[in-house]
Amino acid sequence: MPVITLTTDFGSRDGYVGAVKGVLVRLLQPTPVWAHTTIVDLAHDVPRGDIAHAAWVVATACREFPDGSIHVVVIDPGVGGARRGVVVEAGGSYYVGPDNGVFGYLVPRWVRAIENRAVMAGEVSATFHGRDVFATVAAALARDLDPAAIGGPVTLAGRLPWGARPTGEGRVVYVDHYGNLVTDLPPDEAGAAVAIAGRRLPIVRTYEDVPPGNLLAYVGSARTIEIAVRDGRADRTLEAPRGTPVVPVVERTELR
Amino acid sequence: MPVITLTTDFGSRDGYVGAVKGVLVRLLQPTPVWAHTTIVDLAHDVPRGDIAHAAWVVATACREFPDGSIHVVVIDPGVGGARRGVVVEAGGSYYVGPDNGVFGYLVPRWVRAIENRAVMAGEVSATFHGRDVFATVAAALARDLDPAAIGGPVTLAGRLPWGARPTGEGRVVYVDHYGNLVTDLPPDEAGAAVAIAGRRLPIVRTYEDVPPGNLLAYVGSARTIEIAVRDGRADRTLEAPRGTPVVPVVERTELR
Amino acid sequence: MPVITLTTDFGSRDGYVGAVKGVLVRLLQPTPVWAHTTIVDLAHDVPRGDIAHAAWVVATACREFPDGSIHVVVIDPGVGGARRGVVVEAGGSYYVGPDNGVFGYLVPRWVRAIENRAVMAGEVSATFHGRDVFATVAAALARDLDPAAIGGPVTLAGRLPWGARPTGEGRVVYVDHYGNLVTDLPPDEAGAAVAIAGRRLPIVRTYEDVPPGNLLAYVGSARTIEIAVRDGRADRTLEAPRGTPVVPVVERTELR
Repeated sequence: MPVITLTTDFGSRDGYVGAVKGVLVRLLQPTPVWAHTTIVDLAHDVPRGDIAHAAWVVATACREFPDGSIHVVVIDPGVGGARRGVVVEAGGSYYVGPDNGVFGYLVPRWVRAIENRAVMAGEVSATFHGRDVFATVAAALARDLDPAAIGGPVTLAGRLPWGARPTGEGRVVYVDHYGNLVTDLPPDEAGAAVAIAGRRLPIVRTYEDVPPGNLLAYVGSARTIEIAVRDGRADRTLEAPRGTPVVPVVERTELR
Repeated sequence: MPVITLTTDFGSRDGYVGAVKGVLVRLLQPTPVWAHTTIVDLAHDVPRGDIAHAAWVVATACREFPDGSIHVVVIDPGVGGARRGVVVEAGGSYYVGPDNGVFGYLVPRWVRAIENRAVMAGEVSATFHGRDVFATVAAALARDLDPAAIGGPVTLAGRLPWGARPTGEGRVVYVDHYGNLVTDLPPDEAGAAVAIAGRRLPIVRTYEDVPPGNLLAYVGSARTIEIAVRDGRADRTLEAPRGTPVVPVVERTELR
Repeated sequence: MPVITLTTDFGSRDGYVGAVKGVLVRLLQPTPVWAHTTIVDLAHDVPRGDIAHAAWVVATACREFPDGSIHVVVIDPGVGGARRGVVVEAGGSYYVGPDNGVFGYLVPRWVRAIENRAVMAGEVSATFHGRDVFATVAAALARDLDPAAIGGPVTLAGRLPWGARPTGEGRVVYVDHYGNLVTDLPPDEAGAAVAIAGRRLPIVRTYEDVPPGNLLAYVGSARTIEIAVRDGRADRTLEAPRGTPVVPVVERTELR
C-alpha cells in the first residue's frame, strides 16, 4: 500500500506539481498497485532552491510517515548539471531526489545513484527531473522494483550549509512561516535558559506563558529548542538568521 | 468510508501539514479502514491565528461534504495553553480542533472535550496539537471509536468576535482572497439594495451586471449578500473591515 | 478508475477549493465508482482571472495524465454572465470549465455546452459554478454519464489573447513562478540562438551552462524554447511580457 509524498519548490501557480502527479497516475493506474496507492502533497512552497529549508522539512515531516513510504523531494536548482539523482533508504522508507543536501539530515542505510534509463521517462528534459526522473523512479519503487535495478551504490555528496553540531551548543537551522526560529539544540543540553543574538531567554512551556509580543524559548515540535514571539515573528524581532548560535545559559546558583 | 479534511494556517512552505498527514497515514494504514479513507486538503493558507476567518471557511466548505466526514481544523494560537481541544458533532459530521471560536458557526448536537490520553500521541508536544492530538483523534474517529471514549461532554466556550446578528441588518463577516466582502445578511432581508460604508448598492445578479471596476452587491455563494468590485478588490475600494454593518435600503415608493 | 484534477484561481485561504471537493465527495461517495476515484489538486494559485496562464497550465500538465482523466478548470471571471460552461474531449480525456479561452491550446474531438439542469446542483448560484456546475458535471462524467446528456455540441468560442504562431517565430506565452519565460517556439525552428527583447542568447542545455545571474535560452520542460536567469528571474531582467516575440538568430558562417 504505497504512499508517495511530494515536497517541492514548485509553488501552486504553475503546472509543475500537476505534471509530476500526472506521471505518477499514468504509470501506476494500469497496475494492481494503483488501487492501494496514495499521493500526498507534503509542501510545495519551499523557498526557491532553499536546500537547507527542504532538508529540515524532510527530516521532520517524513519521519511521521510509516515505513515503506516513498518521499519525492524536488528542490533542485542544479537540475541537468553535475549533481546526481539518488534514492536513499533511511528508517525503512525511500527518498528520491537530487543529491544536493536535501537528504542531509537522514541516516541512510543505503544510497543508489539513479542511472538506469529504463526507470526514467523515454525523453528526459534537462530542466525537469521531477517529472522525467524522480516521478518515474518513485512509480517504479511503488511497484516494488528491486532498488539494485536503479543504479549502483554511492554515498551522499550533498552537504548542509553547516557542519556537525558542536557539543553543548546549537544553531538556528530553520525559520518557519510563523517566523519561529527552530534550532538543533536538544532540550537536555539547553537547561533552563538559552542565549541567542544577545538575548537571554528562559525556557517556558508554550506561547501563553509569556505576554503577547514577547520572545520565548521552548521545546518545539521537532523536540529541539525553538524561539518565537507570541502572536509575532521572532525572525523580525531578533537578528538571528540560520546559522546563528544558541547557547545554554548556566544559571549562577543563588546563595540561600 | 471516512473522509478526513484538513483546514489550517500552516501554509505550504513548512512540514507541518505533512506531519499531520504522516500521523494519519501511520495510524490508519495498518487498519482495514485505510483502503476506504480519503484525506482532503481543505485550506492551509488561513491567515495566521485568524479564528473568525477559519470559522467561516469551516461553516461554508465543510457543509458540502457528506454526513460522517471528519473535519480537522487547526487554527490554534493558544496551543498548549488554557483552551480545550474538542470534538463537535454537527449535521452528522465530526469536527476536531481547539475550542477557540473556530466552530462558532456550527450548531452542535454534542461536544466532547479531548481528555483521554489514549487517543493522543505517546508524547504530546506543547505547541503542535495538530499532529499530537487532533490528528490522532481524527484517526480514532475514522476507526469508529466511540466518541464517549474521547472525553466528557462540554459546551463550546470559544466565541466569534461578533455576537448574534441583529434582525434586519448584517455585518461583513469574511473577506476572501479576491477582496470580496462576504456578509451574513440573508437575501430575503436585503430587499433590492444595501448600504455599506456610506455607499448604496443595488443588488444585481453577477459581476458582469456592472462595468469593470464598479462595486456591486449580489447573493454570494454562501447564500448571503456579498460585495465585490468587478475585476477589482472591494476590500481596497471600501473602508469596510469585518464587523462593518450592511443594511437594507428601503426604497421610497415612487408616485406614479 | 476516474481521476479528477482541479485547476483554479481559488487560492488556499478560502473554502472554495474545499466546497468543490465536498461536492465531488458527496456525489461520488455513495456510488461504486468512489472506491476507485482519485481527486488531484493540480494548481490553485493561478493568478486571478488569468485565462492565458491557466490555458498553458492545462496544456502542459493535463497531458501527463492518462486517457480518461477528468480535468476541472475554474478560472472564471465571467461566471454567471454570457460565457458558456463546456465539456471538451481532447486526447481521450475530459475538460470541464468555462468557455473563455482556458481550453485554447486543446485540440478538441468534441465540445458540448453544459445545458442540462439535471447535471447541475439543485440551486445554482450566479457566482460559483465551480461548485454548482463544473463539480457536478465532473461527478457525472466520473459515473460514466453519456456526454450527450450534458448538452448539445458547440464549438469553442473562448480565444487566447494571441493568434496562431507565425512560422519561424515564437512569443512569450507564459511566465512561471521562478520568473522563467516560456515561449511557443519549437526547438527545431530555433536553431542555435534566439533574440528576445534586444538580447541575443545562444541555446544551451541547462542552468549550470551559464554563470549564476546570467540569462540563458534552452529547451524547456514543455519542449519549447525557454528563457531564464540562473538563480534569478528572467521576468525582472528582461522587459519581455507575454506576447513578446522570440526569433531565431541566423548565425553568419565564419570564414575559416
